[in-house]
Amino acid sequence: MTDEELLALARAEARVGLSEGGIPIGAALAHEGRVLGVGHNKRVQLGSAIRHGETDCLENVGRLPASVYAGSTIATTLSPCDMCTGAILLYGIPRVVVGENRTFYGGEDLLRARGVEVVVLDDAECIALMESFIAGNPELWNEDIGEPPDTLDAPR
Amino acid sequence: MTDEELLALARAEARVGLSEGGIPIGAALAHEGRVLGVGHNKRVQLGSAIRHGETDCLENVGRLPASVYAGSTIATTLSPCDMCTGAILLYGIPRVVVGENRTFYGGEDLLRARGVEVVVLDDAECIALMESFIAGNPELWNEDIGEPPDTLDAPR
Repeated sequence: MTDEELLALARAEARVGLSEGGIPIGAALAHEGRVLGVGHNKRVQLGSAIRHGETDCLENVGRLPASVYAGSTIATTLSPCDMCTGAILLYGIPRVVVGENRTFYGGEDLLRARGVEVVVLDDAECIALMESFIAGNPELWNEDIGEPPDTLDAPR
Repeated sequence: MTDEELLALARAEARVGLSEGGIPIGAALAHEGRVLGVGHNKRVQLGSAIRHGETDCLENVGRLPASVYAGSTIATTLSPCDMCTGAILLYGIPRVVVGENRTFYGGEDLLRARGVEVVVLDDAECIALMESFIAGNPELWNEDIGEPPDTLDAPR
């Protein structure tokens, strides 16, 4: 399975989230080329503060031994926020495929500093999904990244 | 409400978790002296990879505006792991009360580097809870911090 194929699964999840009225960010976890599970942001759907794309994916996959995480790649449609960055570090996931980091720049520097390989695909569909969503829902988007409602959605 | 009182709520949650057969780590969130909610680790109870004490607390409290997080303190019985450190950073919670960091040293340095006030109470009950739990359940504990089952539970 290529990085692009794994990202396609994450992107499909983002679109599911959008169809549910949610924030369109998705993720997919693969171990040695086999998909373990997928997930998407559920802030709106579950009233959740912790179900981002990546964390929802990890939760859906369930408890895993460290050895499985250590051979895994997680793809996410958007550069991971601080919480999702921390989840990746906690479990020692060694590779992260990022759909795009133009609409939000998360913890990529910390990931790299801690030895995680970060691959940014700069995917046009991911960018379009987020640009459209942010333009239409700036307050919801700012809430999801811990910013005040009136904050400009500048990458941090 | 004092830091000790907020930690007492977190500690009570840790004991609830233990009574459920879970990992005894709890947390409590207060805004300007008023308790917003509590939570505890639910790895065992829910088969969860993301419900640590702090994240479960944030999830139980639910969606909040950034302005509320910005005036809040979170207490946790144990030094926060990378994921929970990231969650605290994501939401801009400015103060963290840590019960103890002897059995596990988490992201305190990163929190401080990002401007978060971290108060460590070195609470004897919190230490005893974790020492006893880790001694009796080393594999479960290692799983919770993303370590292989046979890893010595040395503070990182």
